[in-house]
Amino acid sequence: MTFSPVSDTLLNQFCTIVGEEFMLVAEHENFHRYASDETEDLKYFPEVVLKPANAEQIAQIVTLCHENFIPVTPRGAGTGLSGGALPVHGGVVISTERLNKIIEIDERNLQATVEPGVINEVFQQAVQEKGLFYPPDPASKGSCFLGGNLSESSGGPKAVKYGVTKDYVLNLQVVLPTGEIIWTGANVLKNATGYNLTQLMIGSEGTLGIITRIVFRLIPYPTKNILMLVPFREEEAAAAAVSQIFRLGLIPSALEFMEREAIEWAAEYLKIEIDLPADILAHLLIELDGNDLDVLYKEAEQLYELLQNYNIGELLLADTEAQKTELWKLRRNAANAVRYNSVYKEEDTVVPRAELPKLLKGVKEIGKRYGFKSVCYGHAGDGNLHVNIIKGDMSDDDWNNKLTEGIKEIFALCVKLGGTISGEHGIGLVQKPYIGIALGEVQLNLMRGIKKVFDPHGIMNPGKIF
Amino acid sequence: MTFSPVSDTLLNQFCTIVGEEFMLVAEHENFHRYASDETEDLKYFPEVVLKPANAEQIAQIVTLCHENFIPVTPRGAGTGLSGGALPVHGGVVISTERLNKIIEIDERNLQATVEPGVINEVFQQAVQEKGLFYPPDPASKGSCFLGGNLSESSGGPKAVKYGVTKDYVLNLQVVLPTGEIIWTGANVLKNATGYNLTQLMIGSEGTLGIITRIVFRLIPYPTKNILMLVPFREEEAAAAAVSQIFRLGLIPSALEFMEREAIEWAAEYLKIEIDLPADILAHLLIELDGNDLDVLYKEAEQLYELLQNYNIGELLLADTEAQKTELWKLRRNAANAVRYNSVYKEEDTVVPRAELPKLLKGVKEIGKRYGFKSVCYGHAGDGNLHVNIIKGDMSDDDWNNKLTEGIKEIFALCVKLGGTISGEHGIGLVQKPYIGIALGEVQLNLMRGIKKVFDPHGIMNPGKIF
Repeated sequence: MTFSPVSDTLLNQFCTIVGEEFMLVAEHENFHRYASDETEDLKYFPEVVLKPANAEQIAQIVTLCHENFIPVTPRGAGTGLSGGALPVHGGVVISTERLNKIIEIDERNLQATVEPGVINEVFQQAVQEKGLFYPPDPASKGSCFLGGNLSESSGGPKAVKYGVTKDYVLNLQVVLPTGEIIWTGANVLKNATGYNLTQLMIGSEGTLGIITRIVFRLIPYPTKNILMLVPFREEEAAAAAVSQIFRLGLIPSALEFMEREAIEWAAEYLKIEIDLPADILAHLLIELDGNDLDVLYKEAEQLYELLQNYNIGELLLADTEAQKTELWKLRRNAANAVRYNSVYKEEDTVVPRAELPKLLKGVKEIGKRYGFKSVCYGHAGDGNLHVNIIKGDMSDDDWNNKLTEGIKEIFALCVKLGGTISGEHGIGLVQKPYIGIALGEVQLNLMRGIKKVFDPHGIMNPGKIF
Repeated sequence: MTFSPVSDTLLNQFCTIVGEEFMLVAEHENFHRYASDETEDLKYFPEVVLKPANAEQIAQIVTLCHENFIPVTPRGAGTGLSGGALPVHGGVVISTERLNKIIEIDERNLQATVEPGVINEVFQQAVQEKGLFYPPDPASKGSCFLGGNLSESSGGPKAVKYGVTKDYVLNLQVVLPTGEIIWTGANVLKNATGYNLTQLMIGSEGTLGIITRIVFRLIPYPTKNILMLVPFREEEAAAAAVSQIFRLGLIPSALEFMEREAIEWAAEYLKIEIDLPADILAHLLIELDGNDLDVLYKEAEQLYELLQNYNIGELLLADTEAQKTELWKLRRNAANAVRYNSVYKEEDTVVPRAELPKLLKGVKEIGKRYGFKSVCYGHAGDGNLHVNIIKGDMSDDDWNNKLTEGIKEIFALCVKLGGTISGEHGIGLVQKPYIGIALGEVQLNLMRGIKKVFDPHGIMNPGKIF
């Protein structure tokens, strides 16, 4: 791929399209914000940042970029963890921050139409006010954009019962890399009309086009829930309990795993006092939801009986909303706490859920051999374990070189266990070197071929995935 | 596309691959069975039918066909309703009937690995014996193959609560049109590792490859259910009630609509005595499921109160398993009954569920203008209405020509209402002339481009979709 620099002529054209106020060049005080996301400490500067108001402006910009071989990096809130929003080839960053309208919440059809720059939690609350539920909410729900959630195929703690982002998307408006605006499907719950372009867009990390409108399906909001924190004396016992819970016939609405340090670091980061007995090495955070509290208590009882087989400590049943909020805060801030503690790399490992104990044991064993410490937590119900490798006082050389081999071993273990190398963060930039562990050349060539069909000039988010 | 005929040399090579017993040519007594499926009265003969034993044999056959420009039509049980399994360009039919093994039911991970020739109901029963649930079951569940269910993105009555076939597929083994064998994903509940090839295969109607192994996710089997048949004095009132049910916060596990004639014809076909009051024009068949019968009765009560607003007749609550079976039999045999009565065309219309009354009214109005009678039933909870257009004593000319314009109007109405032209039957051969109503040239060209990436010689199920 050979790209051209953004000429003054183009800058003028961009300026005419979006307006001076919404074009940022290097001199602008906020320009640097668009050079990084939440991935490690990486920085790549674009040539210009554009903040278009709508799909039509995006189409005009992209058409110019297509004609002039200018790289385009679509950007949501910049909360990604695989470097998907980093403009590694310079060029244009298109921020969707102004496409932030909830266009319609259709209570008759339990659907909603939104722009991609709507913050996940803002949307969740808006639909909840109407008694409706949009379940997928990544840990960053307070700041991440729905468009980014789609691009990275995000999950979140509710996925174990309710599925991930992809399971709620009915239809997408997309600006293609060649500048056309299309809808990928229809606003229906089932669709057997041609290839599934909607699902092809989801998880394509901004490499096939820019999502400009999303039609979601919604479900009725479950009105009751129970939350419990279960301490385990052995990490692997916690992981092993996970798959047994489903054999009770229960599907928890959340089933989260946290190593001791994940919860300790989060508590310290949030300045919350907790008092963990010395022999507790891991926790499961388990939520049950529904519309009937009696049923939930019955289910909790069943759960409690099962968990007695796993040498657990004293189980905490959250009594109040405040207590529930605090427990979720601890879980949701594990990543922030790790980031606050040290430079780190987060590996988004995923395996069939019953293989979690093997994965966890393997990660620790690999860590010992390569001399790295890891803090692990994640969506155990989905077999999705976030392995946070801590730089601590590791040398830069070890961090940049030797560690790579350790990560390869972790990913090879995932694949051996029937899993893969990313469950919900995407490949983006930082996992690109490892994609060959999960996918062979035949699959990658199919993906490259599809990319070329959508984006013959290769301008859309170049340098990502493969 | 220019294809070559199947030469004697090729026939010999095929025979060596599959064995004489499993190669059928025109002289064979069963050969004609492979010339049609359940779509109208269409017939297209292949040059040869092959029944390979495994993916490796299929790969060898497909490689030869790729090299020699021979059309390949993959075939499941032949229960499709859009002509997807018809070998319209002759060539080779590859039947998956010998790939009929349930390879593993993994109770630890709630997953199952199967071959594509397993019958839907056989699989459902096998997992149910282990307390597990595979919800998607088309009306033809007793005979249709899971591979065909995937290829046509099938739904069935449980979709309203549990989703369609695509929502249960984690990973696929596929023989590509170029002969390579790949896995499309991993055996995990969430996957953000490259483009979603799994979902691209599903609903691609055998045009992108032949599915040779499927990894499904399963869920715990809900142990209790309630089934009720609700008679309405106005068809549109039945359709209107549908979207209101969800506003109660309930998600029924089935919510089926049947016009008076659908149920009458089915009863006659099955020789079941029913006594419908003269003023009843439509029914909803509503199922609630879960694990607690008290909760279900509470929900049924809520439902009953709501339905009082719709001028309903006397509601029938199925008391016994036998009664439930009979009601489902009536619903499931509506299509057979229509087929038994007359040549017909089935249009698989789908709209956002609250638009059902408008769709139904529109279909009847269009029927009046074009002089055709229709019998309608379907998955109302999904907005998926099967419109069966009855030939009756319509002239062949009207049937083949004038009617086409009427169907176009029905489909245009679907699209106008936010829907599309197939919910779960696929486009195949018979809906191909209408695809442009649902999808523009830009989308179709993307699909054609993807097809070319997978199948550069265009041999795989040619003449379908677009």
